[in-house]
Amino acid sequence: MIYFDNSATTAIHPEVLRTYTDVATKIMGNPSSLHNLGSTATRLLEASRRQIAELLHVRSEEIFFTSGGTEGDNWVLKGVAFEKEKFGKHIIISAVEHPAVKNTAAWLATQGFEVEVAPVDEKGFVKVPELESLIREDTILVSVMAVNNEVGAIQPIKEIAKLLEDEPTISFHIDAVQAIGKIAVEDFMLERVDFATFSAHKFHGPRGVGFLYVKSGKRLIPLLHGGGQENKKRSTTENLAGIAATAKALRLTLENFEQKTEKVRQMKSVIFEELSKQEKIVLFSENEHFAPNILTFGIRGVRGEVVVHAFEKHEIYISTTSACSSKKNAAAGTLMAMHVKPDLATSAVRISLDHTNNMLEVEAFLTIFRNIYQEMLKVAG
Amino acid sequence: MIYFDNSATTAIHPEVLRTYTDVATKIMGNPSSLHNLGSTATRLLEASRRQIAELLHVRSEEIFFTSGGTEGDNWVLKGVAFEKEKFGKHIIISAVEHPAVKNTAAWLATQGFEVEVAPVDEKGFVKVPELESLIREDTILVSVMAVNNEVGAIQPIKEIAKLLEDEPTISFHIDAVQAIGKIAVEDFMLERVDFATFSAHKFHGPRGVGFLYVKSGKRLIPLLHGGGQENKKRSTTENLAGIAATAKALRLTLENFEQKTEKVRQMKSVIFEELSKQEKIVLFSENEHFAPNILTFGIRGVRGEVVVHAFEKHEIYISTTSACSSKKNAAAGTLMAMHVKPDLATSAVRISLDHTNNMLEVEAFLTIFRNIYQEMLKVAG
Repeated sequence: MIYFDNSATTAIHPEVLRTYTDVATKIMGNPSSLHNLGSTATRLLEASRRQIAELLHVRSEEIFFTSGGTEGDNWVLKGVAFEKEKFGKHIIISAVEHPAVKNTAAWLATQGFEVEVAPVDEKGFVKVPELESLIREDTILVSVMAVNNEVGAIQPIKEIAKLLEDEPTISFHIDAVQAIGKIAVEDFMLERVDFATFSAHKFHGPRGVGFLYVKSGKRLIPLLHGGGQENKKRSTTENLAGIAATAKALRLTLENFEQKTEKVRQMKSVIFEELSKQEKIVLFSENEHFAPNILTFGIRGVRGEVVVHAFEKHEIYISTTSACSSKKNAAAGTLMAMHVKPDLATSAVRISLDHTNNMLEVEAFLTIFRNIYQEMLKVAG
Repeated sequence: MIYFDNSATTAIHPEVLRTYTDVATKIMGNPSSLHNLGSTATRLLEASRRQIAELLHVRSEEIFFTSGGTEGDNWVLKGVAFEKEKFGKHIIISAVEHPAVKNTAAWLATQGFEVEVAPVDEKGFVKVPELESLIREDTILVSVMAVNNEVGAIQPIKEIAKLLEDEPTISFHIDAVQAIGKIAVEDFMLERVDFATFSAHKFHGPRGVGFLYVKSGKRLIPLLHGGGQENKKRSTTENLAGIAATAKALRLTLENFEQKTEKVRQMKSVIFEELSKQEKIVLFSENEHFAPNILTFGIRGVRGEVVVHAFEKHEIYISTTSACSSKKNAAAGTLMAMHVKPDLATSAVRISLDHTNNMLEVEAFLTIFRNIYQEMLKVAG
């Protein structure tokens, strides 16, 4: 099996799973409990939080555990909207956000908020001047993902941060789910960023766990009201085993980060080079300014779905862009926002690499690719 | 160690943990993915859902996975409120709800909803006639827990269901977190119940996983918007290992249910009998109409906290009522609602038993209890 669908989900790291089982077996207290089983649990909870904070160069009290990226995005959008509605109800998102942002914003629009969408250029990058022109007196939130999940475009977070330096009342949220472990932390965890969303299963952690960075002093209404856990910001009994496992996964992911990304970059560039030689191939990702792990392309005239299934027969797993949209038989939202023509957009497939992949897999992939490509040319005519 | 704090959290069952690790290791696909790794994941997801549905005597499509009880409660309250706000904005909860319900309702009150609270009697049971008198034309939701977490009172869900038979436009939600595995499923999963909240870690499942029963045809706005998982009702990549483990935990919990609860009931009754002989002991739980596992009592004049720590020295773990309120140094909300005087309410401690406990532990507990009681009498004077 060759698994090139790492942006959909990654395999849990064996050491991370061991942490999970160790904690689940040995630390049985509820961190909220008064007795020492509770305090032992609390200590591990806070040690995990501290480790994550250190790896992100932020403070422990700025990290809040969640159930994943979707919860993080929902929390920020709704939490900031309801927190700040008395100051304004205008929200800006980009045209290529994950459905967790896009659909949450759409719901807020039904609740009296006004959502405007900053367009992207033909490569998928947010047009910063156009985003700037959307800013108003009553804008309360700007939400832009750090790395796009469908084509891998690294968004101009630095430029947007600079732009927002003069707009201290606007909260700035980044969805960092596809950025962490792929691009350097300092490239997106900028001083001006107020909120950042993370998901553990994208970096070999457990599913159902994520965390949110909330800059000190930034307020947002809870999404989960209740017993007052997570400094009263996010109630529910803490998933301690999952949280400790997530801290471990993040540490492992950022260990030798540069070698790992260099390895991934090289694999991508070998595939890129081969694909770019083929006349009927359209590339939606590039090397510069794109995440090193994502390469999205299409065979003209062939539906992405068909290509995914052709590879699947050889136990090679790739994706029709995002996992979320793959079963809906719909073209990727990012490609539509890039004004790619619908018939071309529906040809798109995404390869998403990981440092656990290797060059032998790339070679095997390319061998199969050449066969599939020839087959498809016959079909597409 | 003697762990009598099972209402705070339970130890994960070794077989449940094995299911978790098996699935996490072997089933790596994202259920949303188009390829066969995705379909394998989807099959397991749906098999887990089916198993849970069968155990609850409901339909698969009525079960939605969540991150736990708090999310379930938040989802129902907010989801029903925003779904039905055009029909009415009046919500009734009981005076003894878990903070996940109480605090969510309080937030909804800041958003233009009107929340009224049905009182309880001196034993902690919701007064059904008083709840009835709160019902109005614009009532959209009634939320009452099936079993109270602080004293174990089994709420009159059947009477409330009967009352609501004539009120088809009112949604009826029960928080069943403390009911499942403690009282018979058919005693709370009634035909008239529209929504029911469950949490896995209360029945030897993993933390961070729960599920919500949503009766067919009942609508509620998602709490987590996004990629459209869970039939578009609850987005986020499914925590497959946690979900499969939860289904296993529920099956194991309901296996030999009657023997298990009888065992628990007997342990409780032995403790109950001993405690009721002591002059300075106040019992807040009874045997009849109370969950078989919860026994809440106080030593007059002694703070619950002191009692918890006294037992802790002997590695016996009990709680000052709920885990959520235990660190806040506040009297249990349930006891306040029962109009127990504050100085008596702050004396309360909760024993919560489990079928994994045994009579030897009960004996050891009682031996230590007698010593502690004598000590405390001296202190309390």
